[in-house]
Amino acid sequence: MKKIAVILSGCGVYDGAEIHESVLVLLALDRAGVQAVCAAPDCEQLHVINHASGEPVPAEKRFVLIESARIARGQIQAVRKLDVDAIDAVILPGGFGAAKNISNFAVKGEQATVNKEVAEFLISAQQAGKPIGFACIAPAIAAQLFGSQGVRFTIGNDAATAQALQTWGGQHINCAVDNIIVDTKLKIVTTPAYMLAGRITEAEAGINKMVAEVLKLA
Amino acid sequence: MKKIAVILSGCGVYDGAEIHESVLVLLALDRAGVQAVCAAPDCEQLHVINHASGEPVPAEKRFVLIESARIARGQIQAVRKLDVDAIDAVILPGGFGAAKNISNFAVKGEQATVNKEVAEFLISAQQAGKPIGFACIAPAIAAQLFGSQGVRFTIGNDAATAQALQTWGGQHINCAVDNIIVDTKLKIVTTPAYMLAGRITEAEAGINKMVAEVLKLA
Repeated sequence: MKKIAVILSGCGVYDGAEIHESVLVLLALDRAGVQAVCAAPDCEQLHVINHASGEPVPAEKRFVLIESARIARGQIQAVRKLDVDAIDAVILPGGFGAAKNISNFAVKGEQATVNKEVAEFLISAQQAGKPIGFACIAPAIAAQLFGSQGVRFTIGNDAATAQALQTWGGQHINCAVDNIIVDTKLKIVTTPAYMLAGRITEAEAGINKMVAEVLKLA
Repeated sequence: MKKIAVILSGCGVYDGAEIHESVLVLLALDRAGVQAVCAAPDCEQLHVINHASGEPVPAEKRFVLIESARIARGQIQAVRKLDVDAIDAVILPGGFGAAKNISNFAVKGEQATVNKEVAEFLISAQQAGKPIGFACIAPAIAAQLFGSQGVRFTIGNDAATAQALQTWGGQHINCAVDNIIVDTKLKIVTTPAYMLAGRITEAEAGINKMVAEVLKLA
Protein backbone atom coordinates (compact mmCIF):
# COMPACT_ATOMS: atom_id res chain seq x y z
CA MET A 1 0.00 0.00 0.00
CA LYS A 2 1.32 3.41 -0.97
CA LYS A 3 2.18 5.73 1.94
CA ILE A 4 1.57 9.45 1.54
CA ALA A 5 2.98 11.91 4.08
CA VAL A 6 0.46 14.64 4.97
CA ILE A 7 2.25 17.58 6.60
CA LEU A 8 -0.02 19.65 8.82
CA SER A 9 0.68 23.13 10.25
CA GLY A 10 -1.64 23.27 13.27
CA CYS A 11 -5.43 23.10 13.53
CA GLY A 12 -7.55 26.00 12.28
CA VAL A 13 -7.50 28.22 9.20
CA TYR A 14 -6.25 31.44 10.86
CA ASP A 15 -3.25 30.07 12.80
CA GLY A 16 -2.82 26.49 11.59
CA ALA A 17 -3.80 23.97 8.95
CA GLU A 18 -7.13 24.61 7.23
CA ILE A 19 -9.33 21.90 8.74
CA HIS A 20 -11.64 21.26 5.76
CA GLU A 21 -8.72 21.01 3.34
CA SER A 22 -6.83 18.66 5.67
CA VAL A 23 -9.82 16.34 6.09
CA LEU A 24 -10.60 16.44 2.35
CA VAL A 25 -7.00 15.34 1.65
CA LEU A 26 -7.30 12.47 4.15
CA LEU A 27 -10.66 11.48 2.64
CA ALA A 28 -9.33 11.49 -0.93
CA LEU A 29 -6.31 9.40 0.10
CA ASP A 30 -8.45 6.83 1.91
CA ARG A 31 -10.83 6.60 -1.06
CA ALA A 32 -7.82 5.90 -3.27
CA GLY A 33 -6.80 3.04 -0.97
CA VAL A 34 -3.49 4.58 0.11
CA GLN A 35 -2.24 5.25 3.63
CA ALA A 36 -1.94 8.78 5.01
CA VAL A 37 1.05 9.31 7.33
CA CYS A 38 0.35 12.53 9.21
CA ALA A 39 3.26 14.63 10.38
CA ALA A 40 3.95 18.18 11.55
CA PRO A 41 6.96 20.27 12.49
CA ASP A 42 7.72 20.13 16.22
CA CYS A 43 7.72 23.87 16.89
CA GLU A 44 5.67 26.62 18.49
CA GLN A 45 2.93 28.32 16.46
CA LEU A 46 3.54 31.94 15.41
CA HIS A 47 0.50 32.84 17.51
CA VAL A 48 -3.01 31.78 18.52
CA ILE A 49 -6.08 33.30 16.88
CA ASN A 50 -9.51 33.16 18.54
CA HIS A 51 -11.42 31.84 15.53
CA ALA A 52 -14.77 33.14 16.82
CA SER A 53 -13.59 36.78 17.09
CA GLY A 54 -10.70 36.70 14.62
CA GLU A 55 -8.46 38.34 17.25
CA PRO A 56 -5.01 37.15 18.41
CA VAL A 57 -4.70 35.79 21.95
CA PRO A 58 -1.26 37.09 23.00
CA ALA A 59 -1.16 35.24 26.33
CA GLU A 60 -1.60 31.82 24.78
CA LYS A 61 1.02 29.44 23.36
CA ARG A 62 0.25 26.42 21.22
CA PHE A 63 2.51 23.96 19.42
CA VAL A 64 2.14 22.89 15.79
CA LEU A 65 2.59 19.14 16.28
CA ILE A 66 0.24 18.97 19.28
CA GLU A 67 -2.55 20.96 17.58
CA SER A 68 -2.12 19.09 14.27
CA ALA A 69 -2.69 15.86 16.22
CA ARG A 70 -6.34 16.93 16.59
CA ILE A 71 -6.85 16.58 12.84
CA ALA A 72 -4.88 13.31 12.81
CA ARG A 73 -6.87 11.79 15.71
CA GLY A 74 -3.60 11.38 17.63
CA GLN A 75 -1.78 9.45 14.88
CA ILE A 76 1.02 11.88 14.10
CA GLN A 77 4.79 12.19 14.20
CA ALA A 78 7.38 14.94 13.91
CA VAL A 79 8.41 15.69 10.31
CA ARG A 80 12.07 15.05 11.25
CA LYS A 81 11.14 11.42 11.98
CA LEU A 82 9.72 10.85 8.48
CA ASP A 83 11.83 8.63 6.23
CA VAL A 84 11.79 9.81 2.61
CA ASP A 85 12.43 6.24 1.40
CA ALA A 86 9.35 4.97 3.25
CA ILE A 87 6.87 7.34 1.60
CA ASP A 88 5.67 7.61 -1.98
CA ALA A 89 4.50 11.24 -2.04
CA VAL A 90 3.85 14.25 0.19
CA ILE A 91 0.82 16.55 0.51
CA LEU A 92 0.54 19.88 2.35
CA PRO A 93 -2.95 21.30 2.95
CA GLY A 94 -3.27 25.06 3.34
CA GLY A 95 -4.45 27.39 6.07
CA PHE A 96 -2.42 30.31 7.45
CA GLY A 97 -0.30 27.79 9.35
CA ALA A 98 1.44 27.01 6.06
CA ALA A 99 2.49 30.67 5.83
CA LYS A 100 2.86 31.41 9.56
CA ASN A 101 4.30 28.20 11.04
CA ILE A 102 5.89 26.13 8.24
CA SER A 103 6.89 29.19 6.22
CA ASN A 104 6.72 32.72 7.64
CA PHE A 105 5.61 34.25 4.34
CA ALA A 106 2.48 35.78 5.94
CA VAL A 107 4.64 38.05 8.12
CA LYS A 108 7.97 38.27 6.26
CA GLY A 109 6.80 38.36 2.62
CA GLU A 110 9.77 38.30 0.27
CA GLN A 111 12.15 37.82 3.24
CA ALA A 112 10.40 34.61 4.25
CA THR A 113 12.14 31.38 5.22
CA VAL A 114 10.85 27.83 5.61
CA ASN A 115 10.98 25.80 8.83
CA LYS A 116 14.27 23.85 8.63
CA GLU A 117 12.76 20.46 9.51
CA VAL A 118 10.12 20.73 6.76
CA ALA A 119 12.48 22.32 4.20
CA GLU A 120 15.01 19.49 4.53
CA PHE A 121 12.32 16.83 4.20
CA LEU A 122 10.64 18.40 1.16
CA ILE A 123 13.94 18.99 -0.65
CA SER A 124 14.98 15.36 0.00
CA ALA A 125 11.58 14.11 -1.17
CA GLN A 126 11.71 16.18 -4.38
CA GLN A 127 15.28 15.06 -5.10
CA ALA A 128 14.19 11.44 -4.60
CA GLY A 129 11.50 11.92 -7.28
CA LYS A 130 8.52 11.89 -4.91
CA PRO A 131 5.63 14.08 -6.05
CA ILE A 132 4.47 16.85 -3.71
CA GLY A 133 0.99 18.38 -3.62
CA PHE A 134 0.19 21.78 -2.09
CA ALA A 135 -3.24 23.40 -1.49
CA CYS A 136 -4.34 27.01 -0.85
CA ILE A 137 -1.44 29.17 0.44
CA ALA A 138 0.87 26.15 0.98
CA PRO A 139 2.32 26.66 -2.54
CA ALA A 140 4.20 29.58 -0.89
CA ILE A 141 6.45 26.85 0.52
CA ALA A 142 6.98 25.38 -2.96
CA ALA A 143 7.79 28.85 -4.32
CA GLN A 144 10.45 29.37 -1.66
CA LEU A 145 12.07 25.93 -1.85
CA PHE A 146 11.80 25.24 -5.59
CA GLY A 147 11.68 28.75 -7.10
CA SER A 148 15.36 28.48 -8.07
CA GLN A 149 14.38 25.51 -10.25
CA GLY A 150 11.63 27.58 -11.88
CA VAL A 151 8.70 25.78 -10.27
CA ARG A 152 5.30 26.44 -11.90
CA PHE A 153 2.58 26.81 -9.28
CA THR A 154 -0.70 28.51 -8.37
CA ILE A 155 -2.26 30.19 -5.34
CA GLY A 156 -5.38 31.07 -7.32
CA ASN A 157 -5.44 34.54 -8.87
CA ASP A 158 -4.33 37.10 -6.25
CA ALA A 159 -1.89 39.26 -8.22
CA ALA A 160 0.03 40.78 -5.29
CA THR A 161 0.58 37.42 -3.56
CA ALA A 162 1.47 35.78 -6.87
CA GLN A 163 4.06 38.47 -7.61
CA ALA A 164 5.63 38.24 -4.15
CA LEU A 165 5.91 34.46 -4.52
CA GLN A 166 7.77 34.82 -7.80
CA THR A 167 10.63 36.46 -5.82
CA TRP A 168 12.38 33.10 -5.62
CA GLY A 169 12.28 32.46 -9.37
CA GLY A 170 9.20 30.31 -9.88
CA GLN A 171 6.25 31.10 -12.13
CA HIS A 172 2.72 31.66 -10.82
CA ILE A 173 -0.15 30.61 -13.08
CA ASN A 174 -3.76 31.70 -12.46
CA CYS A 175 -6.00 28.70 -11.81
CA ALA A 176 -9.72 28.09 -11.21
CA VAL A 177 -10.84 26.76 -7.83
CA ASP A 178 -11.71 23.33 -9.22
CA ASN A 179 -8.47 22.87 -11.10
CA ILE A 180 -4.74 22.22 -10.57
CA ILE A 181 -1.39 23.34 -11.93
CA VAL A 182 1.05 20.50 -12.56
CA ASP A 183 4.80 21.01 -12.82
CA THR A 184 5.58 17.68 -14.47
CA LYS A 185 9.36 18.16 -14.36
CA LEU A 186 9.51 18.82 -10.60
CA LYS A 187 6.41 16.67 -9.87
CA ILE A 188 4.77 19.50 -7.95
CA VAL A 189 0.98 19.84 -8.03
CA THR A 190 -0.89 22.89 -6.65
CA THR A 191 -4.57 23.87 -6.28
CA PRO A 192 -6.17 27.11 -4.97
CA ALA A 193 -8.66 25.48 -2.52
CA TYR A 194 -9.80 28.11 0.03
CA MET A 195 -7.70 30.84 -1.62
CA LEU A 196 -10.73 30.92 -3.95
CA ALA A 197 -13.36 28.50 -2.64
CA GLY A 198 -16.60 29.97 -1.34
CA ARG A 199 -17.87 26.60 -0.15
CA ILE A 200 -16.45 23.25 0.87
CA THR A 201 -17.49 21.41 -2.32
CA GLU A 202 -15.46 23.90 -4.38
CA ALA A 203 -12.38 23.20 -2.28
CA GLU A 204 -13.08 19.49 -2.59
CA ALA A 205 -13.13 19.57 -6.41
CA GLY A 206 -9.59 20.96 -6.71
CA ILE A 207 -8.22 18.90 -3.82
CA ASN A 208 -9.55 15.68 -5.33
CA LYS A 209 -7.81 16.52 -8.61
CA MET A 210 -4.58 17.44 -6.82
CA VAL A 211 -4.55 14.19 -4.82
CA ALA A 212 -5.34 12.13 -7.93
CA GLU A 213 -2.49 13.78 -9.88
CA VAL A 214 -0.01 13.31 -7.00
CA LEU A 215 -0.91 9.62 -6.84
CA LYS A 216 -0.58 9.30 -10.62
CA LEU A 217 2.94 10.76 -10.45
CA ALA A 218 3.93 8.58 -7.46
CA MET B 1 -32.57 27.07 0.72
CA LYS B 2 -32.93 24.73 3.70
CA LYS B 3 -30.92 25.71 6.79
CA ILE B 4 -29.48 22.96 8.96
CA ALA B 5 -28.02 23.76 12.38
CA VAL B 6 -24.77 21.90 13.04
CA ILE B 7 -24.01 21.88 16.76
CA LEU B 8 -20.30 21.44 17.52
CA SER B 9 -18.72 20.60 20.89
CA GLY B 10 -15.17 21.89 20.49
CA CYS B 11 -12.39 20.89 18.08
CA GLY B 12 -10.70 17.51 18.45
CA VAL B 13 -11.89 13.97 19.12
CA TYR B 14 -10.63 13.63 22.72
CA ASP B 15 -11.99 16.88 24.21
CA GLY B 16 -14.28 18.34 21.53
CA ALA B 17 -16.10 17.63 18.29
CA GLU B 18 -14.61 14.87 16.14
CA ILE B 19 -13.06 16.86 13.28
CA HIS B 20 -13.51 14.31 10.47
CA GLU B 21 -17.16 13.72 11.37
CA SER B 22 -17.84 17.46 11.57
CA VAL B 23 -16.27 18.14 8.17
CA LEU B 24 -18.04 15.14 6.61
CA VAL B 25 -21.37 16.54 7.85
CA LEU B 26 -20.59 19.98 6.37
CA LEU B 27 -19.51 18.34 3.09
CA ALA B 28 -22.67 16.22 2.83
CA LEU B 29 -24.86 19.27 3.55
CA ASP B 30 -23.10 21.39 0.93
CA ARG B 31 -23.37 18.58 -1.65
CA ALA B 32 -27.10 18.45 -0.95
CA GLY B 33 -27.37 22.19 -1.64
CA VAL B 34 -28.51 23.15 1.85
CA GLN B 35 -26.94 25.70 4.21
CA ALA B 36 -25.08 24.65 7.35
CA VAL B 37 -25.54 27.02 10.31
CA CYS B 38 -22.77 26.18 12.76
CA ALA B 39 -23.37 26.73 16.46
CA ALA B 40 -21.90 25.65 19.79
CA PRO B 41 -22.71 26.09 23.46
CA ASP B 42 -20.97 29.11 24.97
CA CYS B 43 -19.26 27.32 27.87
CA GLU B 44 -15.89 26.10 29.05
CA GLN B 45 -14.65 22.67 27.95
CA LEU B 46 -14.49 19.94 30.59
CA HIS B 47 -10.73 19.85 29.99
CA VAL B 48 -8.00 20.04 27.34
CA ILE B 49 -6.35 16.88 26.02
CA ASN B 50 -2.96 16.99 24.30
CA HIS B 51 -3.95 14.97 21.21
CA ALA B 52 -0.34 13.96 20.46
CA SER B 53 0.25 12.36 23.89
CA GLY B 54 -3.36 11.61 24.88
CA GLU B 55 -2.73 13.27 28.26
CA PRO B 56 -4.83 16.00 29.91
CA VAL B 57 -3.29 19.48 30.24
CA PRO B 58 -4.62 20.61 33.63
CA ALA B 59 -3.23 24.17 33.41
CA GLU B 60 -5.07 24.97 30.19
CA LYS B 61 -8.61 26.28 29.69
CA ARG B 62 -10.45 26.33 26.37
CA PHE B 63 -14.00 27.30 25.45
CA VAL B 64 -16.37 25.23 23.34
CA LEU B 65 -17.67 28.00 21.07
CA ILE B 66 -14.20 29.45 20.41
CA GLU B 67 -12.63 26.08 19.58
CA SER B 68 -15.64 24.99 17.49
CA ALA B 69 -15.12 28.15 15.41
CA ARG B 70 -11.96 26.52 14.02
CA ILE B 71 -14.06 23.86 12.28
CA ALA B 72 -16.59 26.49 11.16
CA ARG B 73 -13.88 28.82 9.73
CA GLY B 74 -15.13 31.55 12.07
CA GLN B 75 -18.79 31.39 10.97
CA ILE B 76 -20.42 30.30 14.21
CA GLN B 77 -22.89 31.48 16.84
CA ALA B 78 -23.96 30.49 20.34
CA VAL B 79 -26.67 27.80 20.41
CA ARG B 80 -28.86 30.12 22.54
CA LYS B 81 -29.01 32.53 19.58
CA LEU B 82 -30.38 29.87 17.20
CA ASP B 83 -34.02 30.33 16.24
CA VAL B 84 -35.87 27.01 15.95
CA ASP B 85 -38.30 28.51 13.42
CA ALA B 86 -35.41 29.56 11.15
CA ILE B 87 -33.88 26.09 10.78
CA ASP B 88 -35.17 22.94 9.11
CA ALA B 89 -33.16 20.31 10.97
CA VAL B 90 -30.28 19.85 13.40
CA ILE B 91 -27.16 17.65 13.26
CA LEU B 92 -24.68 16.87 16.04
CA PRO B 93 -21.37 15.24 15.06
CA GLY B 94 -19.61 13.11 17.68
CA GLY B 95 -16.27 13.26 19.46
CA PHE B 96 -15.83 13.18 23.24
CA GLY B 97 -17.00 16.81 23.34
CA ALA B 98 -20.55 15.51 22.86
CA ALA B 99 -20.17 13.47 26.06
CA LYS B 100 -17.85 15.83 27.98
CA ASN B 101 -19.03 19.32 27.04
CA ILE B 102 -22.60 19.11 25.67
CA SER B 103 -23.52 16.16 27.88
CA ASN B 104 -21.30 14.99 30.74
CA PHE B 105 -22.05 11.30 30.12
CA ALA B 106 -18.34 10.45 29.76
CA VAL B 107 -17.72 11.36 33.41
CA LYS B 108 -21.14 11.05 35.07
CA GLY B 109 -22.56 7.99 33.30
CA GLU B 110 -26.13 7.34 34.37
CA GLN B 111 -26.10 10.57 36.43
CA ALA B 112 -25.35 12.65 33.34
CA THR B 113 -27.08 15.88 32.41
CA VAL B 114 -27.15 17.89 29.18
CA ASN B 115 -25.93 21.49 28.81
CA LYS B 116 -29.02 23.64 29.41
CA GLU B 117 -28.58 25.82 26.30
CA VAL B 118 -28.36 22.78 24.00
CA ALA B 119 -31.06 20.78 25.82
CA GLU B 120 -33.61 23.59 25.49
CA PHE B 121 -32.84 24.06 21.79
CA LEU B 122 -33.01 20.35 20.93
CA ILE B 123 -36.25 19.82 22.85
CA SER B 124 -37.83 22.83 21.11
CA ALA B 125 -36.60 21.59 17.71
CA GLN B 126 -37.98 18.11 18.30
CA GLN B 127 -41.32 19.46 19.51
CA ALA B 128 -41.49 21.64 16.38
CA GLY B 129 -41.12 18.52 14.23
CA LYS B 130 -37.55 19.23 13.06
CA PRO B 131 -35.48 16.09 12.46
CA ILE B 132 -32.25 15.69 14.46
CA GLY B 133 -29.23 13.63 13.41
CA PHE B 134 -26.54 12.40 15.82
CA ALA B 135 -23.22 10.67 15.03
CA CYS B 136 -20.80 8.58 17.11
CA ILE B 137 -21.29 9.18 20.88
CA ALA B 138 -23.60 12.19 20.31
CA PRO B 139 -26.66 9.85 20.50
CA ALA B 140 -25.93 9.89 24.28
CA ILE B 141 -27.56 13.33 24.17
CA ALA B 142 -30.62 11.91 22.37
CA ALA B 143 -30.85 9.10 24.94
CA GLN B 144 -30.88 11.61 27.80
CA LEU B 145 -33.32 14.10 26.28
CA PHE B 146 -35.70 11.74 24.48
CA GLY B 147 -35.36 8.49 26.45
CA SER B 148 -38.62 9.21 28.26
CA GLN B 149 -40.32 9.13 24.84
CA GLY B 150 -38.70 5.76 24.10
CA VAL B 151 -36.25 7.00 21.47
CA ARG B 152 -34.65 4.27 19.33
CA PHE B 153 -30.98 5.00 18.69
CA THR B 154 -27.53 3.50 18.15
CA ILE B 155 -23.97 4.14 19.30
CA GLY B 156 -22.72 1.09 17.39
CA ASN B 157 -22.45 -2.13 19.36
CA ASP B 158 -20.72 -1.43 22.69
CA ALA B 159 -22.92 -3.33 25.17
CA ALA B 160 -21.92 -1.49 28.35
CA THR B 161 -22.38 1.97 26.83
CA ALA B 162 -25.64 0.91 25.19
CA GLN B 163 -26.98 -0.37 28.50
CA ALA B 164 -26.01 2.79 30.39
CA LEU B 165 -27.72 4.92 27.73
CA GLN B 166 -30.96 2.98 28.15
CA THR B 167 -31.16 4.38 31.71
CA TRP B 168 -33.43 7.17 30.47
CA GLY B 169 -35.93 4.83 28.79
CA GLY B 170 -34.79 4.71 25.15
CA GLN B 171 -33.86 1.61 23.19
CA HIS B 172 -30.39 0.99 21.79
CA ILE B 173 -30.14 -0.98 18.55
CA ASN B 174 -26.85 -2.41 17.26
CA CYS B 175 -25.90 -0.90 13.91
CA ALA B 176 -23.12 -1.37 11.34
CA VAL B 177 -20.68 1.48 10.73
CA ASP B 178 -22.11 2.26 7.28
CA ASN B 179 -25.71 2.30 8.41
CA ILE B 180 -28.22 4.35 10.43
CA ILE B 181 -31.04 3.85 12.92
CA VAL B 182 -34.12 5.95 12.20
CA ASP B 183 -36.74 6.74 14.84
CA THR B 184 -39.46 7.83 12.43
CA LYS B 185 -41.88 8.91 15.17
CA LEU B 186 -39.42 11.26 16.90
CA LYS B 187 -37.53 12.04 13.64
CA ILE B 188 -34.20 11.14 15.24
CA VAL B 189 -31.47 9.58 13.08
CA THR B 190 -28.26 8.08 14.52
CA THR B 191 -25.11 6.50 13.04
CA PRO B 192 -22.05 4.92 14.77
CA ALA B 193 -19.33 6.82 12.80
CA TYR B 194 -16.04 6.65 14.76
CA MET B 195 -17.60 4.54 17.53
CA LEU B 196 -16.90 1.78 14.97
CA ALA B 197 -15.08 3.29 12.00
CA GLY B 198 -11.49 2.22 11.43
CA ARG B 199 -11.01 4.69 8.58
CA ILE B 200 -12.53 7.94 7.38
CA THR B 201 -14.42 6.42 4.42
CA GLU B 202 -16.25 4.12 6.85
CA ALA B 203 -17.36 7.11 8.93
CA GLU B 204 -18.33 8.89 5.71
CA ALA B 205 -20.65 6.09 4.57
CA GLY B 206 -22.84 6.24 7.69
CA ILE B 207 -22.71 10.03 7.96
CA ASN B 208 -23.82 10.46 4.34
CA LYS B 209 -26.80 8.17 5.02
CA MET B 210 -27.63 10.01 8.26
CA VAL B 211 -27.53 13.44 6.57
CA ALA B 212 -29.64 12.17 3.62
CA GLU B 213 -32.26 10.75 5.99
CA VAL B 214 -32.38 13.93 8.09
CA LEU B 215 -32.91 16.00 4.93
CA LYS B 216 -35.60 13.59 3.75
CA LEU B 217 -37.46 14.03 7.06
CA ALA B 218 -37.04 17.84 7.02
